[in-house]
Amino acid sequence: MAFIDNDFLLTTKTASKLYHEHAESLPIIDYHCHLDPKQIASDYRFQDISEMWLGGDHYKWRAMRACAVDEHYITGDADPKEKFLKWAQTVPYLMRNPLYHWTHLELKRVFGIDELLNSKTAEKIYEQCNEKLASNNITATSLIKQFNVEVVCTTDDPSDTLEHHAAISKKHADIRVLPAFRADKALAADNPNVFNEWIVRLEKTSGVSIGSYAEMVMALQLRHDFFEKMGCRVSDHGLDTFYAADYTDNEIETIFAKIREGIEPSRKEVSKFRSAVLHDLAVMDARCGWVQQFHIGPIRNNNTKMFLEKGPDLGFDSIGDLPSSDAGHRFFDRLTSEGALAKTILYCLNPKDFEMMAAMAFTFCDGTEPGKMQLGAAWWFLDHEYGIRRQLDVLSSFGPLSRFVGMLTDSRSFLSYTRHEYFRRILCSVIAEDVESGRMPKSEMDFIQEMVKDISYYNAKDYFKF
Amino acid sequence: MAFIDNDFLLTTKTASKLYHEHAESLPIIDYHCHLDPKQIASDYRFQDISEMWLGGDHYKWRAMRACAVDEHYITGDADPKEKFLKWAQTVPYLMRNPLYHWTHLELKRVFGIDELLNSKTAEKIYEQCNEKLASNNITATSLIKQFNVEVVCTTDDPSDTLEHHAAISKKHADIRVLPAFRADKALAADNPNVFNEWIVRLEKTSGVSIGSYAEMVMALQLRHDFFEKMGCRVSDHGLDTFYAADYTDNEIETIFAKIREGIEPSRKEVSKFRSAVLHDLAVMDARCGWVQQFHIGPIRNNNTKMFLEKGPDLGFDSIGDLPSSDAGHRFFDRLTSEGALAKTILYCLNPKDFEMMAAMAFTFCDGTEPGKMQLGAAWWFLDHEYGIRRQLDVLSSFGPLSRFVGMLTDSRSFLSYTRHEYFRRILCSVIAEDVESGRMPKSEMDFIQEMVKDISYYNAKDYFKF
Amino acid sequence: MAFIDNDFLLTTKTASKLYHEHAESLPIIDYHCHLDPKQIASDYRFQDISEMWLGGDHYKWRAMRACAVDEHYITGDADPKEKFLKWAQTVPYLMRNPLYHWTHLELKRVFGIDELLNSKTAEKIYEQCNEKLASNNITATSLIKQFNVEVVCTTDDPSDTLEHHAAISKKHADIRVLPAFRADKALAADNPNVFNEWIVRLEKTSGVSIGSYAEMVMALQLRHDFFEKMGCRVSDHGLDTFYAADYTDNEIETIFAKIREGIEPSRKEVSKFRSAVLHDLAVMDARCGWVQQFHIGPIRNNNTKMFLEKGPDLGFDSIGDLPSSDAGHRFFDRLTSEGALAKTILYCLNPKDFEMMAAMAFTFCDGTEPGKMQLGAAWWFLDHEYGIRRQLDVLSSFGPLSRFVGMLTDSRSFLSYTRHEYFRRILCSVIAEDVESGRMPKSEMDFIQEMVKDISYYNAKDYFKF
Repeated sequence: MAFIDNDFLLTTKTASKLYHEHAESLPIIDYHCHLDPKQIASDYRFQDISEMWLGGDHYKWRAMRACAVDEHYITGDADPKEKFLKWAQTVPYLMRNPLYHWTHLELKRVFGIDELLNSKTAEKIYEQCNEKLASNNITATSLIKQFNVEVVCTTDDPSDTLEHHAAISKKHADIRVLPAFRADKALAADNPNVFNEWIVRLEKTSGVSIGSYAEMVMALQLRHDFFEKMGCRVSDHGLDTFYAADYTDNEIETIFAKIREGIEPSRKEVSKFRSAVLHDLAVMDARCGWVQQFHIGPIRNNNTKMFLEKGPDLGFDSIGDLPSSDAGHRFFDRLTSEGALAKTILYCLNPKDFEMMAAMAFTFCDGTEPGKMQLGAAWWFLDHEYGIRRQLDVLSSFGPLSRFVGMLTDSRSFLSYTRHEYFRRILCSVIAEDVESGRMPKSEMDFIQEMVKDISYYNAKDYFKF
Repeated sequence: MAFIDNDFLLTTKTASKLYHEHAESLPIIDYHCHLDPKQIASDYRFQDISEMWLGGDHYKWRAMRACAVDEHYITGDADPKEKFLKWAQTVPYLMRNPLYHWTHLELKRVFGIDELLNSKTAEKIYEQCNEKLASNNITATSLIKQFNVEVVCTTDDPSDTLEHHAAISKKHADIRVLPAFRADKALAADNPNVFNEWIVRLEKTSGVSIGSYAEMVMALQLRHDFFEKMGCRVSDHGLDTFYAADYTDNEIETIFAKIREGIEPSRKEVSKFRSAVLHDLAVMDARCGWVQQFHIGPIRNNNTKMFLEKGPDLGFDSIGDLPSSDAGHRFFDRLTSEGALAKTILYCLNPKDFEMMAAMAFTFCDGTEPGKMQLGAAWWFLDHEYGIRRQLDVLSSFGPLSRFVGMLTDSRSFLSYTRHEYFRRILCSVIAEDVESGRMPKSEMDFIQEMVKDISYYNAKDYFKF
Repeated sequence: MAFIDNDFLLTTKTASKLYHEHAESLPIIDYHCHLDPKQIASDYRFQDISEMWLGGDHYKWRAMRACAVDEHYITGDADPKEKFLKWAQTVPYLMRNPLYHWTHLELKRVFGIDELLNSKTAEKIYEQCNEKLASNNITATSLIKQFNVEVVCTTDDPSDTLEHHAAISKKHADIRVLPAFRADKALAADNPNVFNEWIVRLEKTSGVSIGSYAEMVMALQLRHDFFEKMGCRVSDHGLDTFYAADYTDNEIETIFAKIREGIEPSRKEVSKFRSAVLHDLAVMDARCGWVQQFHIGPIRNNNTKMFLEKGPDLGFDSIGDLPSSDAGHRFFDRLTSEGALAKTILYCLNPKDFEMMAAMAFTFCDGTEPGKMQLGAAWWFLDHEYGIRRQLDVLSSFGPLSRFVGMLTDSRSFLSYTRHEYFRRILCSVIAEDVESGRMPKSEMDFIQEMVKDISYYNAKDYFKF
């Protein structure tokens, strides 16, 4: 019997019914991912399963490193097949890790392969995948369509021209790929080099000559407007913690000038600067009804040696433990006082903070929108059954689960859409376990079915208004 | 079949037997709540279910805000029935949230209503509840008696006259309502206005003219003595974290003088001042054998706009994440060295700290009293099955569950006594699951039954000695 | 029926099969414990069960204190039998605490006693145990052999002569007891007395006259070499948090001189000094292929009164909550950049940090060794089913469980080897639950059996290379 059978992860009959009858076939709204719009625009065709699977997937890279695979076969010069064989040999050692599930889900859903991947099956599966890649017209856009993805939101810098998004809407009328506004570089006050290079790009795309913080904000607002025109409805911030220091306009201008001269500001100045930028971007989001997302907790590129050799995003990221409650509450309180609180999703990478962030989110709901501020889906290192169940339990205990906007992929891979299946199966199990144990009333199955549908699809549709 | 049936939350037959035969009928000792003694003294009769349910329940208010109910229907001027209908419409969306369970438990136990509350049933249930409120003599004291509450401890400021407690013991000889000593205002060193207003009240009730910190402590001691005479056996502190800075008497007097002049002390001074006050109050508790309670972790009134408009306690509270291990251990070590450690219960609102606080509590047990210092029940945002099970698992793993003093309501509502039923059902399930799986010996059912009874009732009786 | 039956803690048939057929009979590699090498060398014979059980077990002491047993019967002068009776009377109150399981496991495995310990059975069990102790030749080495312990690593200061280890290998050729290098005293910069006394001992054993930090490192290196010769393959650090401050050699020499003059350095200087020592020791470990262990999170001897009266390690330890992500990542990044990262195990005592530490560990795996850096077993306060399951779930979700080096005892007691049985039963249940629910493929039982064996024994064998 196949490992991924009909009832994979579905713990009861009610779960199975809920999933297959009410969740399985709904479209996907992928409101946050890291797909490359250029690949979509060009309808990229992957050369082989190695490129597709191992070309940029830092989850797999970490797992291989922990299983004693040499870097040569990970980010090095080994040929694609060698890399695949090393991955295949690693897979059995990942039982109980989400990669074991994701790998076989992807093999089954995209390539129709039921066999387990390991050293023995590696050659055969390698050939099968590559044949199907060649013959079946598996491309960037075909995958988006196959997985019934209604909207994709990529992650884009304000200085980006969005030319690929324009190209996509011209060339691929049957899919919707929207930009998302992520101005992390505007917060890079601690790194004048990075900040200043970015300012140059922003000047170019915005047409604004940026001589002051005020002009930077003006340029960002122009890009914000342009993103809006391109269909963007969502912003995003990747942060180690929240920032809500007190500051004056003059202070911020002085710090801006300092950074522009290439001088690294003090920690206190960095904090003030970030507080200002985050606030001003939040106001833009509120003004035009966008959803703002905060991804709190990563510490990135912790392997300086590899960073210097090969650059960022190689799987050397980790989880921070900075306090974030005080600044977070101050930040959202300030916006609330100004009447400038946009719809907001809080993601936290350190699960110790799930409860605190859930409480924070539901503290600022103001009756204007269902789930206006909410705890986001289990993310990145937490995107496994253990993390997903914990997020669902915390969200349920602290607020209305029924208003949850549900899953996103947060992925660089077109195959990751299987994670929505993964999430929906777990969601249906969690809810069905409560129904079968009498914690939710069996008499309300109609409502409960709607709830499953809402969390799988309709809530996101209503919330983001793409 | 009714949603809340006989075996609601009882996961096994053993759980059902334990609950129905050994826990269900025991009296309640509510050693910490926020009931209004004036309402009890006057044997308050609620005008309608809206006033009773929605008049002060910030849990419900938060849930309504998260479900897009306008503030007009929450803390605004909408009429009682409108408010009730909005709440009813919200309820189905709260499945998996404890409010869904509490709501139906309260409807069933107090009003004998088995129907689920939602938009369709709202009108009917509204009428039914109001009829019963009018006809059945449902009053503040009748509810206390109906729920078999042996003792109620309210939460009272030292400057309070306790006139209502006096009135209760005169007029309602069949119930016991005792004060609890909560001197949070004495810690408000960061807010000279609040502190100074409170000093004036304390001067008045204590009859002490307070010109120094030493005189403030003297006044507090007089009130402590008076509370003791009124039957008080328990104090309480609501804190963001522990305070155990070093300080001299002179420093504290200087800081006191500063605050009295209306000057806000520095953060360091606030910390010293709080360290002194907490220490001195702890010594009073130890001297007369009271139980001291520490509620660690809330950050309150995070919505400044609503606070300025409408005041405190509107459901805009949240969870902090300050470190508290170092100061906590220093604080209790100091008291231990002085032979002045009272019985102590530690509650933590941020569940990341459950294990740390459990370890702290059992570190200072000294063999003089069973469970002398212990981890308190899951509280406020954690008062749901997920939080209660986690607290029970941590307590069990770190110390003797058998010595746990069990549940409290911590509520402003007379209907919240159903939460003892809720807790006891979960407790019986947790224990029974261990019995049925062989983790606890089936042969010891007699002992296990006593353990359930102890945690439900007898431990609190022995511990607090009301 | 006996409480500890064949399927104790084994939740399914698959679990039972996995445990009994594949885990139960494997040898134990106890790579971290606190057994006294002198007791092993002299093949210590315990006078009675009180000495054996209650002579140094701070877990039991804490439990007795929390159950109102007077210190007289704990660390005081009560006679052995009185102490045993007090313990026996405490035991039933510890249901759901791991001590309840450990106690009966130890009674069964070492003394063949199936009865439950309590006040009624105390006298009888006391006699039975003491008879068996007298007649059955139960000694330090017999227990090590009975439990099939292949290697024991004790915990030893660099200044230790290791004479007992030498004696053991001479006198007891059939057991292997190796030293482990724990230089905590080298980090005691905050306590010049302790540090300076230690320097004197280190000078003596190393033969180096230590006038500078560089000479201290030289002496440590000599001891490191000597430990290596004695079979040591593992170091260990007990820390409140990580230290990775910036420093210069000159600064460290200045701080060293200060401490040697008996002056307590500032907090910042302590941090610099510890950063230097930890770094330099880590480099030694990397150079000779040892495994370095970091035990993060305890705060020790929190009861100053008892510490002054009776000394350290009396069960007044607790859990800290210092941030450790930033410094930890900086520490291991620095070593990675220098090509000096040894195999590393991270243990954390505050379970809020499990996920963060797991992410940290797998961030620095570099493909050279399976599980090169990994999250260590649930430890000390977390060494119960609740903690063990949580550690296994986090490890599985963040990395390859299959590469886990498994359990250690971390104990001062020769009876604690039952904790390996305890751990293996839980491990088999966790894995079997996933097999039976389809989360792991039933078809791969051969691999899964190997995985159980690896985690129980073979991974540690391969990893430590004793």
